Order: sequence, then C-alpha cells, then structure tokens
Amino acid sequence: MSDRISEKLTELAKRRGYFFQSSGAYGGVGGFYTFGPQGAALKGNVEDAWRDRFAIAEGHMEIDAPTIMPEPVFEASGHLETFDDMLVECPECEESHRADHIVEDETEYEDAESLPVPEVEEIIAEYELVCPTCGAGLAGAAIEDFNLMFATNIGPGDSQPGYLRPETAQGIFVEFPRLKEYARNTLPFGVTQIGRAYRNEISPRRSIIRTREFTQAELELFVDPETSEPDLTLVEDVSVRLYPATEQQADDGSEVETTIGDAVADGTIADPWIAYFLGIAQEWYASVGVDTDRFRFRQHLAGERSHYASDCWDAESEIDGNWIEIAGFAHRGDYDLSKHQEYSEERFTVFQQYDEPKTVERAVVDPDMSYLGPEFGGDAQAVVEELETLAGRDRAAFEGETVDVEFGDETHEIPVEKTGFAVEEQTEAGEHVVPHVIEPSFGVDRLVYTILHHAYREDEVAGEERTYLDLEPEVAPTFVGVFPLQSDDDLEDEAEGIAAALRAEGLSVTYDDSGNIGRRYRRQDEVGTPFCVTVDYESLEDGGVTVRERDTTDQKRLPIDDLPETLSALRAGEVAFEDLDEE
Amino acid sequence: MSDRISEKLTELAKRRGYFFQSSGAYGGVGGFYTFGPQGAALKGNVEDAWRDRFAIAEGHMEIDAPTIMPEPVFEASGHLETFDDMLVECPECEESHRADHIVEDETEYEDAESLPVPEVEEIIAEYELVCPTCGAGLAGAAIEDFNLMFATNIGPGDSQPGYLRPETAQGIFVEFPRLKEYARNTLPFGVTQIGRAYRNEISPRRSIIRTREFTQAELELFVDPETSEPDLTLVEDVSVRLYPATEQQADDGSEVETTIGDAVADGTIADPWIAYFLGIAQEWYASVGVDTDRFRFRQHLAGERSHYASDCWDAESEIDGNWIEIAGFAHRGDYDLSKHQEYSEERFTVFQQYDEPKTVERAVVDPDMSYLGPEFGGDAQAVVEELETLAGRDRAAFEGETVDVEFGDETHEIPVEKTGFAVEEQTEAGEHVVPHVIEPSFGVDRLVYTILHHAYREDEVAGEERTYLDLEPEVAPTFVGVFPLQSDDDLEDEAEGIAAALRAEGLSVTYDDSGNIGRRYRRQDEVGTPFCVTVDYESLEDGGVTVRERDTTDQKRLPIDDLPETLSALRAGEVAFEDLDEE
Repeated sequence: MSDRISEKLTELAKRRGYFFQSSGAYGGVGGFYTFGPQGAALKGNVEDAWRDRFAIAEGHMEIDAPTIMPEPVFEASGHLETFDDMLVECPECEESHRADHIVEDETEYEDAESLPVPEVEEIIAEYELVCPTCGAGLAGAAIEDFNLMFATNIGPGDSQPGYLRPETAQGIFVEFPRLKEYARNTLPFGVTQIGRAYRNEISPRRSIIRTREFTQAELELFVDPETSEPDLTLVEDVSVRLYPATEQQADDGSEVETTIGDAVADGTIADPWIAYFLGIAQEWYASVGVDTDRFRFRQHLAGERSHYASDCWDAESEIDGNWIEIAGFAHRGDYDLSKHQEYSEERFTVFQQYDEPKTVERAVVDPDMSYLGPEFGGDAQAVVEELETLAGRDRAAFEGETVDVEFGDETHEIPVEKTGFAVEEQTEAGEHVVPHVIEPSFGVDRLVYTILHHAYREDEVAGEERTYLDLEPEVAPTFVGVFPLQSDDDLEDEAEGIAAALRAEGLSVTYDDSGNIGRRYRRQDEVGTPFCVTVDYESLEDGGVTVRERDTTDQKRLPIDDLPETLSALRAGEVAFEDLDEE
Repeated sequence: MSDRISEKLTELAKRRGYFFQSSGAYGGVGGFYTFGPQGAALKGNVEDAWRDRFAIAEGHMEIDAPTIMPEPVFEASGHLETFDDMLVECPECEESHRADHIVEDETEYEDAESLPVPEVEEIIAEYELVCPTCGAGLAGAAIEDFNLMFATNIGPGDSQPGYLRPETAQGIFVEFPRLKEYARNTLPFGVTQIGRAYRNEISPRRSIIRTREFTQAELELFVDPETSEPDLTLVEDVSVRLYPATEQQADDGSEVETTIGDAVADGTIADPWIAYFLGIAQEWYASVGVDTDRFRFRQHLAGERSHYASDCWDAESEIDGNWIEIAGFAHRGDYDLSKHQEYSEERFTVFQQYDEPKTVERAVVDPDMSYLGPEFGGDAQAVVEELETLAGRDRAAFEGETVDVEFGDETHEIPVEKTGFAVEEQTEAGEHVVPHVIEPSFGVDRLVYTILHHAYREDEVAGEERTYLDLEPEVAPTFVGVFPLQSDDDLEDEAEGIAAALRAEGLSVTYDDSGNIGRRYRRQDEVGTPFCVTVDYESLEDGGVTVRERDTTDQKRLPIDDLPETLSALRAGEVAFEDLDEE
C-alpha cells in the first residue's frame, strides 16, 4: 500500500492542517507549500528538538542571518558559477525538465548529475528518451546549465544584484571573522542556524520533498585539522546501518549493520568527526519518530562529492520504496573559509598557539644598498624583494660566492657578501590556521514528511476503519485533547478547568466540544494526539475522568487531581500508560 | 546622553554578539543585519513570548507560509500598484533618497508620505531643499514612485514573476478558504504567523530599525462585523498613554493618560477590538521589557491611514528622543478578503447561521414561455433574465398591467400576467459573510532594538564604570552564568555539575571559566544575564556558592542543593533576590 500512503498522507495533510500547496486560490505555483496549524506546530517542535540536541547540548552558538545576500558572497562560494542543474526543454510542448532525472528514471545510469553535459546529451539520443509530459523525442535538444539561485535587485537606481541564499551555511561562513571573536579564537567551535533556503528547481515534485523554498538546520563546526578531535566514546555503541561507497559499487554490495565504534575501527567511516555526528544523528532521528528500519547512512560516491569535500555521507529515509536524502554530513576541508579569504578583504583564520613556543630557522637577507643602489638604480628595491623571496625558497643559492637573481629578462650575479644573507633562529608562539569545516546539514521539511509518513497507521476499531498518526509525544502538535462528553455548562466548565491546568503544566492542549465523542477521538487520532481526556457527568461526582491512549485506544479512569503530574510523566516516558493504576 | 546610547549600543551589540551589519567582509549592504548568538536568543525568546500571548493564550492558529508569492496575490492586494515610496535621485552625486523624508526632516511638514507627488516636488523647490549626501540642490529633480517589493522569477524558461512578501499577512489572507475549514467555519477566529518580510527600502537607516529584511509577528483576526465582540472586561483596567488624532491636530494637544475602559467609554478608541488588543499589547510589552514611560499608542491621522482601514493605532517606543513605530493595530474591514475574492476563483466568505431561520419576502418571476418564445425567438432567455433582475430590483414595475423591459436598444412592453410575477416567502438559515479583519502587526527587530535600548544602563561599581543590560529574565539570552573561581579541576567539575543541574531545570545557562572573575561578571553584565553563580574552594567544603544579582551586584551565599529551585523561583518572579535568606 506504499504508494497509497503518500496519496492518503497528502489528503490528510490538507484536510487536517499539516501542509498544502500555497496560493491555491490562484492556482498555486509548483514548489511552494504552506504549513497549516498542525504542520507549523510539528515543524516548530522538530526545530526545537534539533536546537536542543545540536546547538545547546553541544554548546554551540546559534545565529540568525538574512536570506538575501549580495553577489560577491556567491562569487566566492562558487554558487554563481556551478550551482546549476541540467535543463532540457521539450521542443514540442516547451515544458522544462531536468535532463539528469530523465536519464536516471529511464536508463541504468544512477548518478547522471555527475556526468558532463555532452555525455548526457548523447545518452538521451542513444536511448531515444522522450519528454515525460508529451512524449515527444528529446534527441538533439540542447541541455542548458540552469542556475538554481533566485536573483533579485537590492536598492533603487544603482541597484546591486542579490540572491536568496541556496543554503543557510553562507550566512555563517561569511561572518566567520566576527564569530571567531565570540568563540574567543578557540577551536573547535560550532555555529548553527535554522532558517529558510531557496532553490529555483526546474521541476519541483513529490509534495514537500523537493520544493523551491524550504527550511534547513545547519551546523558548521570549525576545527583545527591538526588537533581537534571528537569524543567518540559518547557514540561508539550506537548501532547504524551504513551503505558505504565500496558496497554501492560492488556487484553484490549491500548495507552494513554495524556500530559507530566498529565502523571507525575498520575504516568504513574515515573521519572521526563524521562518525561522531552520524552517531548523534542516528539517536536523534529515532527520538523524533523516524523509523530506524527505514533509515540508513549512505556514503557519497567519489563523483557525487563536491571536489573539495574529502568525505560525505547522507542520512536517507525510505518513502514508498525510494530512499530520499534528509541530511548530509560533509567534511568540507578549508574550502569555504579559504575562498572567502581569497575573495574578501578579511582574514578567515584563527591564531593557534603552540603548546610551547617553537624555535625555527629562517633565512634572511640584509642587502648592502651602497652596492645595490649604484648597480641597479630605480630597480634596487625590486632586487631586494627578489633576494628575500629567494632566501625563503632556496638557501643553497647563497652557498657560493655569488648568487644569481632573475630580474627583468636577465640573470644578474650578485656577490653573496653584499646580500647580508644569514640564517637566524626565531621563536614563534603559534600559527594562523584556516579552520576546516565539518557540516551536518538537515532538511527540515523532508524530515517532517518522513516523520508523518513513518507515523501513518491504519487499523480497525470496533469494526470501523481508523487512520492515526503514531507521532512521538516530543513532536506531536498536540499532546492531549480535552473534551466535555456533552454540550453542558457544568461539563464544559470542568473540562476547561482541566485544559487550563494541563496548559499551566507546560503541555500542549486542544479543547474540543463540537460533534459526538467518536468524531472528536477520530480527529485527534488523525492529527496524532497521544492522549485524550473526557469529562462526563460522573466526573462531577467522583473527580475522575476517562483517559484514552491513541495507539491502543485503551481507556482508563484516572483522578483529575493527578492529571497534570500523570500526563507529564507519560510525556517524559517515565511511566507507560498500560502500567497506570485506575482509581 | 541619548545619542550616545544608540552609538554605544551598536558597539556593544557588535562586540557581544547581539547584531551587526551582514557580509561585512564584503563591505556590507545597507539594510541587512545578522543576529549573533545573543541577539538570536533574545529574538527567539521575544518570538516565543509573543506566540504564548497572542496565539496560544488567545486560542489562535499559527501557520508557516512561503516568503515568495506569485504575482496575482499582489495584484489583488494592491501592493504592485501602490506599495511605493517617493524616490528622488540627486542630479549631482546620483545618490537615491526618500523625498518625503527630506521634506519631513527639513520643513514643518510632518506627514509628507501622504502628500501627492507634485506637491512634494513643489515643496522641494520652494524650500530649496538639498541632497543630504552632497548638498546639491534638488529643485527640479523628478520624484519617482519606487515599488518596494523585491522581485524575482520562479522557474526556468516560461518563468513567472514572483515577489518576496512585504508582510506576512498575505500568506494568511490568500489561504483563508482553507483556514476557515480548520476553524470549522466559525467566527471569530484568528491566524498568526511569525516570519520574514521584505521591503526594498530606498535608504535603510538607523541600525535594525529600518532594514530591508525583517521579522514580523502578525495576527489576523477574522470577525463577523455584526456579531463578534471582544471581552473588554479583561483589559478595561489597563492603563495606557494614548495620542489620539484629535490631540495631534490640536494646537495645544497632548498625550492622554487613561485606561482602556475609559477610552472606550468616552469614544477615544472607537473600535472595541482595537481597544482589546491595545490593552493586551500594553501589558505584554511591559512583560518583555519595554519601558512604559517611553511607550505610547498613537492614532493614525486620516491621511495616514490606508483608505480601507476604518481605524488604526501604532504602538510607539521612544528611542533617543524620537518615537518609532513598533506595532500597528488596524481595523481593515473586508478589504483583504473582498479583494482576493474578486481576483481569484475562490469564495472568501463564511456561512453565518442565524440564531433562528429568517423568513424573507422575495419577488420572483415564472414567465410564460409559450408567449415569450414566439414573441422574442432566440432572445427569449435574455428577456427572462432581464425580468428576474427587474423583479429583484423594482417590484413596483410589475404593479400595472404591463411591464417595460429594456432590451437591445429598445423598450418592450410585456403583459404582467405573462411574467408569472409573484412575491413569495422564503426561509433562510443564514448568510454568506465576508469577514472583517482586525490586524495587530508587530515588528520583531524594532522591538528587540527597543528592549536593548530601554535596558541599557551605566553605573559605577567599586569605583569602576560598568555597563549592563537590565533585561527581563523571560527574554534575556542567558538567565544564569556559572563560573569556577579559578582554573582548578575540582572547582570546574563542581561548576559544570551545577550548570548541568540548572540546565535540567530548564534554565538558560552559560558556563565560563576564562579570565578573572571580574571580567566574567562584566561580560555577563554586558549581555544582560540576571544572575551569576561562582564556585570557590569553600563550596567544596560547605556546599554553598556565591550568587550575584546583576542590577545591584549584591552577592549572597546560597546552598548548591537548593539552586535549581531558588533560581527557578527568581525567574518566575515568585521571590525577590533581596528577600532570600543566606545559608
């Protein structure tokens, strides 16, 4: 029934307020979705859970940067030049498609995105691939590189180009010179950001999985490549399912069930920081409701990786038999900071003090200007610079009586005694290091979709079909529904009082007094509310209420006075519903 | 020292991680700011406090919509046509300026924005106003209407225009047909959104007060204009300072100190919903740290209001002697929903059931086609429609023996007996109503700035100058700093244990073990941390620590075991620091 789940989920999401295509009154636009009341709450809870785990618990800083950034940022980052997808327009119906997707869908090529454009054009011709919309042949249609950034103009008149950021990361990288001050110039340190990112997809598809505006939760960890190390003892026992590059390329390759500790020991995961974050992510994903039986980490193949990334793994969840990327864990080396250092006026380094000052030998010159001046005239200073460079590069050149200096188009012989050449000892306290970046990057919308898909359940209750969402209490939009059994002032007063008391306990509560009780249960089942409390006439006498558990639909009679405490304990997982004693 | 506060605040904000201009490594771009770790935390706390008060406590729904919206939305909303500022470009230096700001700054005109362009051009000529950048005369320079929306293109090839939303509100209005279903078609209901909005300001200025990308917290309350009413008893005793339009226009007008109840009773605030939200906002602003002595509500002058708004008040805070708008409270009538209903294919109404079905008289026709057919041929159906319209409009026309129908270019006489005219009684259960909108709209960045400005303090402690931020515990980025007195493993272990225990209690904690204790206090003072806990050697013996209060710098010795409880009570305001007993 896998295909049907996605369809039913989309319908439920629209009807119950999880998500729906935006601007439907105007026909909608591909790739833009609105989260309704339930979806916004679920998404907010997921973001809070991410912040707790990846920012607060790890001791990292969170920032909040603009989504529009000026052009020079993306010249440095490389997005202007290379952040392209392969666009092919159907010569018949003029619909635009991603050429690499057509190739992947219709041939045995698995990673067409990494192939050069001419090769993809050849494959399309060879396989006689057709337009997915109208069926016309695409052979001979030119493939264009289409840049995925949304462009705009900042300011009037002499306006300058700006772009909506394609990832939150650039808002962190570009501010590194200031952020390192907040970290008091000490590595490693991490900076997180949760916010919007934008990609002008050629053909957005599959609901909120591939949209044009989405939310990322990213952590940029800045490390000293020589000295920074994670504490792997914290994650070594975490069980993971890995799909390494070697297995993907082997004829009979398969996923590997292992632990983080073993995967590091046998070299499956080469980088200890990547291993650390895979371990944390595995446990965190399970805590927010990803089904770990439908979850794995897949290593990028060499061709898939950005050229600067030394290793990269994706977290993938299974949706309707397909694996979709829901996070990436990349070792980006010093690429990002080096590029910004090269393109801007600032220093993107941290001064790393040595444990003890080091004594180093340096070759220096101190030329005799009373000789060089008359000899070289206005070029004397340039000759001095040549000598300095040469001394740093090649001490042996100064070992004879004369040294050869290339200058202009000629070689000049200069007596070594006139250069003041010497090798001196210098003491250095440390060095300026361009930090390396470890980047765990999470897609929030895709995770929300995965959580809903993995939580979708159908069963039969008292002979009737039922749909419910088996959401974790930590992320469910509502934790408890409170209902008066019937429309009656006394019952409503009592129920409203209970709702208020539960809210004061910090629980997320929905009060509902409309429709028959069965419909109200069904409504809460469909939005995934773990518990419901119903106030009846007996409640006014005996101070008890009926508490119903979502998944089992079991009901227990519990005292009103203990409800805040009992429900808090249920939410924290300190007690199971089945173990509660009735009054 | 007022001007100096803004300068010092900007410097402190940059140094301590509240906010700073973005992309500084590339020279920055006007109107874009990044919130550093402290600023992002403060902003997040303010947003949470707003959500608690204006969404959760009021029982409203929160949604999360895209920031890019398609063109038809803004054709309907009127933003494409009228969301303009007056742009004047200096003929000498080519710098762009807002013409209305120049007029307001240099003449006695107070609301130049509401004047027609030719009049502003005349004023510039008459007063011989000059370019604020280079001093060249601006007389004769043409003023252009400059649209403030950031434009982009969605999709490749046959791309369609899209715009970054200039307010979060449109993301709510456009989804009304679906949102009303979630509200089960019952008025009033409210929908909130906290998110980014964008305005391509001609000349962004004054730090984060007028930026090009900012965060709004908006509530759109949909009400039945006939029947929906707020419960004013909840706010009638709230004291407010009002600056009504009449006082602004009077020669000796002044602000009025009153209560919401009195202001409604004497007609100062005409609309009860506006009164309700001003009352709530007054108390909420105080709770997050706005100095109510530097706060007022100012009514829009008639010329200032959008033509559709029946009343509008701004919340204003005083910054360096200037009043800045930090929220608007508008009664928008049915403008927004009517416009979207007109421009889209959907119905933006709610069916409002009458308390009891109403019996209404309706004039109907039931024409005799055996007469009309032969008489009018192919035009007979059109004549029927004319008769139906006429019956609805003018029953008296059917009072004689014949009725005149205008059709084509002629008037036709038709015998009334052939029209089947009758007046019938019909029963109606309710009617389709276009709801009216009450909109409290808050600017989050300006509020963050106001909170910091109003919290800025300088004093002298032990003969040294000190700067601190008197932030409310609810919004302070950090509630408590925990320090080991010296660099010592035992002290650090103990302090880290305390920090962990306080975090487990849900408090926001900063652990700091670098620099001398005085510097660490100063650092926390500057970011506005209300309390600091210092662990010393005695702590290891007697289980006590020194707790220091930010504003007074008073210190008390308190038992470690009680700290989580004591600090939670301090945060909740259940106890005052000065009343705590030392151990």
